[in-house]
Amino acid sequence: MGKQAFESRVAYLGPEASFTHLAAGEAFAGEWLMPYTTIPECIEAVSNGEVEFAVVPLENALEGSVPLTLDYLFHDVELHVCAEILSPIEQHFMVHPEQVVNKEDIKMVLSHPHALAQCHKYLYYRFRGVPLEQTTSTAAAAKYVSEHPELTIAAIGNDFSAKKYGLTIVEANIHDFHFNHTRFFVLQKANLKLDKKGHDETPKTTLMITLPVDDRSGALHQVLSVFAWRQLNLSKIESRPLKTGLGHYFFIVDVQEDEQTPMMLGAIEELRALGCAVKSLGTYFTYKKE
Amino acid sequence: MGKQAFESRVAYLGPEASFTHLAAGEAFAGEWLMPYTTIPECIEAVSNGEVEFAVVPLENALEGSVPLTLDYLFHDVELHVCAEILSPIEQHFMVHPEQVVNKEDIKMVLSHPHALAQCHKYLYYRFRGVPLEQTTSTAAAAKYVSEHPELTIAAIGNDFSAKKYGLTIVEANIHDFHFNHTRFFVLQKANLKLDKKGHDETPKTTLMITLPVDDRSGALHQVLSVFAWRQLNLSKIESRPLKTGLGHYFFIVDVQEDEQTPMMLGAIEELRALGCAVKSLGTYFTYKKE
Repeated sequence: MGKQAFESRVAYLGPEASFTHLAAGEAFAGEWLMPYTTIPECIEAVSNGEVEFAVVPLENALEGSVPLTLDYLFHDVELHVCAEILSPIEQHFMVHPEQVVNKEDIKMVLSHPHALAQCHKYLYYRFRGVPLEQTTSTAAAAKYVSEHPELTIAAIGNDFSAKKYGLTIVEANIHDFHFNHTRFFVLQKANLKLDKKGHDETPKTTLMITLPVDDRSGALHQVLSVFAWRQLNLSKIESRPLKTGLGHYFFIVDVQEDEQTPMMLGAIEELRALGCAVKSLGTYFTYKKE
Repeated sequence: MGKQAFESRVAYLGPEASFTHLAAGEAFAGEWLMPYTTIPECIEAVSNGEVEFAVVPLENALEGSVPLTLDYLFHDVELHVCAEILSPIEQHFMVHPEQVVNKEDIKMVLSHPHALAQCHKYLYYRFRGVPLEQTTSTAAAAKYVSEHPELTIAAIGNDFSAKKYGLTIVEANIHDFHFNHTRFFVLQKANLKLDKKGHDETPKTTLMITLPVDDRSGALHQVLSVFAWRQLNLSKIESRPLKTGLGHYFFIVDVQEDEQTPMMLGAIEELRALGCAVKSLGTYFTYKKE
């Protein structure tokens, strides 16, 4: 066998030109990027060795739900996070080049329901009463507009999909919130940090913690004490139902510290001594897309 | 004016036969249920007086994302939660009645991407290799199947959509997790509990808490102490970015107590004395769909 054309295969939540594709392309430029239909399919592709990496949305994404990614990582697989990608949500208003002259007279706006929701105020003030048509992705909306040059319709989506389908962006950055980021996890089997150029200095560790008893008010407070007295900074905390019945929860905690430091090793040991089950997704760096 | 035919108008996240429609129909049987395309549109409909109530998904829903609902309630409107509805996610495998004889020979499965994901294992073991086609909702999948009786295809969705589009459920409850619930908020302007038959005994209060300073490890621990020493039980805690820049967060806390009890009044007062901003979404009861 000769030298491989690609160093690694990377699964991402499709379709092509999705926001996840955009994030994956940023982190794995020149690698073999492969679209998958659902989040579990992406995750399973790493788990069964079809690919080396998977990029999946974690927070505030258009294409998938947070709970699905977290729950699948908790319940179904033993994988690690090797990087997170923070990518700003930038929605643009795009039309077919032949329809640019009619841009004030749009008859219908197409996009993914979450994209329509993220541009709610823009659509309300600029295109009140114009019908909104839902599509399965922002890329599907752009594709439809590109295939119907005779219709005075517009799509909302990212610049990648505008380029891919030859549309003209007539108004950029029409999303309502401008500090809104989507968070993606890069997953792999090994517990190794992805250490490329341009990441943040502070490493982050994601822990999934199951409390020992039903007395949650006290137990959660105790868990946080373990981090607080060590001055370990938590950048996120979230509770998720355990799916073994109502009222049973596990917690996802992001700590701004490497899991191999003495303070973190001590914290994890102490959590286990308190009767908690602790599953670490590993330590990773944050890559910010500008 | 004579007696109104309906007591109240209720916005829900559509389309018709969506999981949110199912939950809204449960809580508001016989009322005027009106579908809206996006979560912000549902919420705005209550805010501007078009309807008296809105039912929106909050957690683990198919049609919308959690962050959108929580963020919109935090940033954009002054509304209250008057009830929450817990509804089990039940996905069924359905075909056109004329295709029941070919149910082992399905050529394509259609559904919303999250529904496909929730039935990932079922599809993997029973229909490996069969193409999955994404639709904008589970109801849209059922509609498509009903309109193509000549095709050997199947939809995944709830029993409501099977009934509405005249499909036959050939396998029920094919979702991978069986204790998985979707949580819906019922919103209104007034801060009043919806007190109908059949709710849980324990009231719940949702608070949105913004921490005063950047020292999160200590501050969050302090916030939880306020609840812990009073033995106020938290059934959920979640951090959300503030959208004013990276690293700024607010917390959503569900407390199993009425906000008018002395303990809760004391806790809220103490949180404010600590420099936290506290926004209460109100106290409400939980309605469980069996």
